[in-house]
Amino acid sequence: MPGPFTLQQIAQRLGGRVVGESGILIRQVGSLERATREQITFLSNSKLKAKLAETRASAVILAPGDEKLTGLPRIVADNPYAYFARVSQLFNPVVTQSGIHPSAVIAPSAKLGRNVSLGAGCVVGENVVIGDDSCLYPRVVLYPGCTIGARVVIHAGAVIGADGFGLAPENGRWVKIPQIGAVRIGDDVEIGANTTIDRGALDDTVIEEGVKLDNQVQVGHNVRIGAHSAVAGCVGIAGSARIGRHVTIGGAAMIQGHIEIADHVHVSAGTLISRSLTKPGTYTGIYPFDEHDAWKRNAARLRRLAKEKKNA
Amino acid sequence: MPGPFTLQQIAQRLGGRVVGESGILIRQVGSLERATREQITFLSNSKLKAKLAETRASAVILAPGDEKLTGLPRIVADNPYAYFARVSQLFNPVVTQSGIHPSAVIAPSAKLGRNVSLGAGCVVGENVVIGDDSCLYPRVVLYPGCTIGARVVIHAGAVIGADGFGLAPENGRWVKIPQIGAVRIGDDVEIGANTTIDRGALDDTVIEEGVKLDNQVQVGHNVRIGAHSAVAGCVGIAGSARIGRHVTIGGAAMIQGHIEIADHVHVSAGTLISRSLTKPGTYTGIYPFDEHDAWKRNAARLRRLAKEKKNA
Amino acid sequence: MPGPFTLQQIAQRLGGRVVGESGILIRQVGSLERATREQITFLSNSKLKAKLAETRASAVILAPGDEKLTGLPRIVADNPYAYFARVSQLFNPVVTQSGIHPSAVIAPSAKLGRNVSLGAGCVVGENVVIGDDSCLYPRVVLYPGCTIGARVVIHAGAVIGADGFGLAPENGRWVKIPQIGAVRIGDDVEIGANTTIDRGALDDTVIEEGVKLDNQVQVGHNVRIGAHSAVAGCVGIAGSARIGRHVTIGGAAMIQGHIEIADHVHVSAGTLISRSLTKPGTYTGIYPFDEHDAWKRNAARLRRLAKEKKNA
Repeated sequence: MPGPFTLQQIAQRLGGRVVGESGILIRQVGSLERATREQITFLSNSKLKAKLAETRASAVILAPGDEKLTGLPRIVADNPYAYFARVSQLFNPVVTQSGIHPSAVIAPSAKLGRNVSLGAGCVVGENVVIGDDSCLYPRVVLYPGCTIGARVVIHAGAVIGADGFGLAPENGRWVKIPQIGAVRIGDDVEIGANTTIDRGALDDTVIEEGVKLDNQVQVGHNVRIGAHSAVAGCVGIAGSARIGRHVTIGGAAMIQGHIEIADHVHVSAGTLISRSLTKPGTYTGIYPFDEHDAWKRNAARLRRLAKEKKNA
Repeated sequence: MPGPFTLQQIAQRLGGRVVGESGILIRQVGSLERATREQITFLSNSKLKAKLAETRASAVILAPGDEKLTGLPRIVADNPYAYFARVSQLFNPVVTQSGIHPSAVIAPSAKLGRNVSLGAGCVVGENVVIGDDSCLYPRVVLYPGCTIGARVVIHAGAVIGADGFGLAPENGRWVKIPQIGAVRIGDDVEIGANTTIDRGALDDTVIEEGVKLDNQVQVGHNVRIGAHSAVAGCVGIAGSARIGRHVTIGGAAMIQGHIEIADHVHVSAGTLISRSLTKPGTYTGIYPFDEHDAWKRNAARLRRLAKEKKNA
Repeated sequence: MPGPFTLQQIAQRLGGRVVGESGILIRQVGSLERATREQITFLSNSKLKAKLAETRASAVILAPGDEKLTGLPRIVADNPYAYFARVSQLFNPVVTQSGIHPSAVIAPSAKLGRNVSLGAGCVVGENVVIGDDSCLYPRVVLYPGCTIGARVVIHAGAVIGADGFGLAPENGRWVKIPQIGAVRIGDDVEIGANTTIDRGALDDTVIEEGVKLDNQVQVGHNVRIGAHSAVAGCVGIAGSARIGRHVTIGGAAMIQGHIEIADHVHVSAGTLISRSLTKPGTYTGIYPFDEHDAWKRNAARLRRLAKEKKNA
């Protein structure tokens, strides 16, 4: 593990302004509640100032407006959370698995960049291209023809490029539509464990640079996700949806197919988006939960609404 | 890749009526927007006729009523989408991985039909039976005793036959109920990536012929899904639910346990079905989303509904 | 397979009171509908008494109050369902895969207890500890540093210890927060197929003893799930949520991050819990589904509620 570093050394590397004892040694990062001596923590929300008073950390990162909340040695930074992230990266550089595990199965026609790491049990199909410094954790499957950018991280169990759900009904049967597009993933994308991204039906499914997908996300065929968007766990994005740039989608939300979502839209957790959104903003559609009996009465009332209106 | 074929040759194989230059050569299929020369596209929805006017495809498949919408060489067919699917199959025959990958782990007692293909890392348990021409993509797990029909396709990461969630509460602890049923999957079923189908508690879980399951679908123990039903991504079907034939279930919908759904029911995306449905039709239950502040006011109002009624 | 046993022998091992012919031979358990001769079934719900009248089972387990509902040889037990579970365990002892499959990949620093079984394709990272008698089905991935208790069962495709979704926004980009915590799983936990449990950001993610997770559950970083809680399929639990003991969470429910749920809370299927719950009880928030047209009218009415109120 790198370090230790003094507060002064940290600020020299990452910027920010040191207040108090700048020679104090820091060996690791920690949370407000659990940090111990020689650890640095952060305050990104003034509401947590009570916890700050009790922290056992040796130093803290905070915003200019919160500078007076503690007497501890501190680094003042405009974005304490991002600053903390960088300090943590300093103490905890990503140790990717080194190299290609012997149990990985790589098609002869696949092209791997420099310093690509493939975990145990990965499967890389024909004509796949993987950019430099990308890291696939164990048991990732890349179907043939998919393209992965540089510095991409894919967690265990993810499946990239399986067939989209393309079926034409005919006389009560389903006729399969060959899925002849592929998946293209940009640079600096991170993909969570057991997430699935389907190949396109005709054209490609595209994940632009800097996109972050959490675990168990399902991305249908011909979806496009714009750069630097983030999608939380258990989200489903149906076929041919187009998600803008800098969009965030909360956990277990659902985006229906063939709709467009503008840049800088935020979809709340658990919300089903059923039509295009052309304006930035936060969109929500969650049924408010309640104690079961209260919910039951309320739901019954809700069901009668339309009828009452008609009779009124 | 097979082909090229003339329009005439395509119609000879698949039916339909050629209008215009029947000798034109076609090499591939394409979407209305992206098809290029020597590609054939299709129009299944008259609303897209503006796009048809701009397509660069060399030919188009359309319905009798839309025949006059273009001057391009065309094939008139009753079901343009299914026809297109078949044309695409002509140009893009499924190239299954050939044979059994050496890293697949197959129990000695398993029985594989003719021309079964198993991708890298597949695990086939004791007494599993797999029918002719079935294709398992990499890393599929079949637990012991499961039966897979002919021409079944299972995508990467799917798990068939894990234990159902059978627990009896006793003094604040959970007593596990051994799951001694298996999973039976009919002919021509397709199963998506990372989908899970649990084995039965006592009797079997059954997926009838022609059923199509998308990615990340969860099928609980003792569920039965009737023939030719289709289930979109992220759907959960709880234990002992019985789904009829020709049912469609939209993405992220949820079917509760021990209920029955009639043939030809369509469940909308995101809808939770909490009681049996005895009549065909489309069923929906989605909370309408809104801008966050509007939703918040609305949700608060909704919660007061029951109380107001009581006081009225 | 063990057995057969007489009713008398079963009651000697497991308790309960035999009524009727106690020497009758039992070879297996079965459901009310499908049990056949020499099988024992159970009645845990008096509503099923019509089915009891038709069962072909040779014996039945039932509660004291239902004792008179049948003339069949029977065992009277206070908790027929749990009793049945134990009888089934008697006839169907779990046959774990024996030992370590040669294709499992185990880091040199990992420590495995006695009688641990690892299925084909499992990957066990550096410094992982697995307790005695635990069983990992094929293709489970344990990231470095995770701790698994004794008698833990993990089904195929589960991923334990992948990075949590920790990102700090900075100038329209995401800065990754290293996830330096791990996952600690207590004794007697069972984890379903393709379930994912993320490692902690700073501190650990903790699953206490006796917890049961179904398939395709997603557990975010720094979540704590209290002892003997049960979580059904497709549930998402967002980061830093604290779930109490003896909690049950229904299928496809969603627990938002940073909230606390008291002991003995029951969350209904499909319900999104968006604030802390301090009192035991059952909580529900499901939009009632309807035929599509009725829902559409109703949803439109619902959206107007807030506006009307304002104008009133």
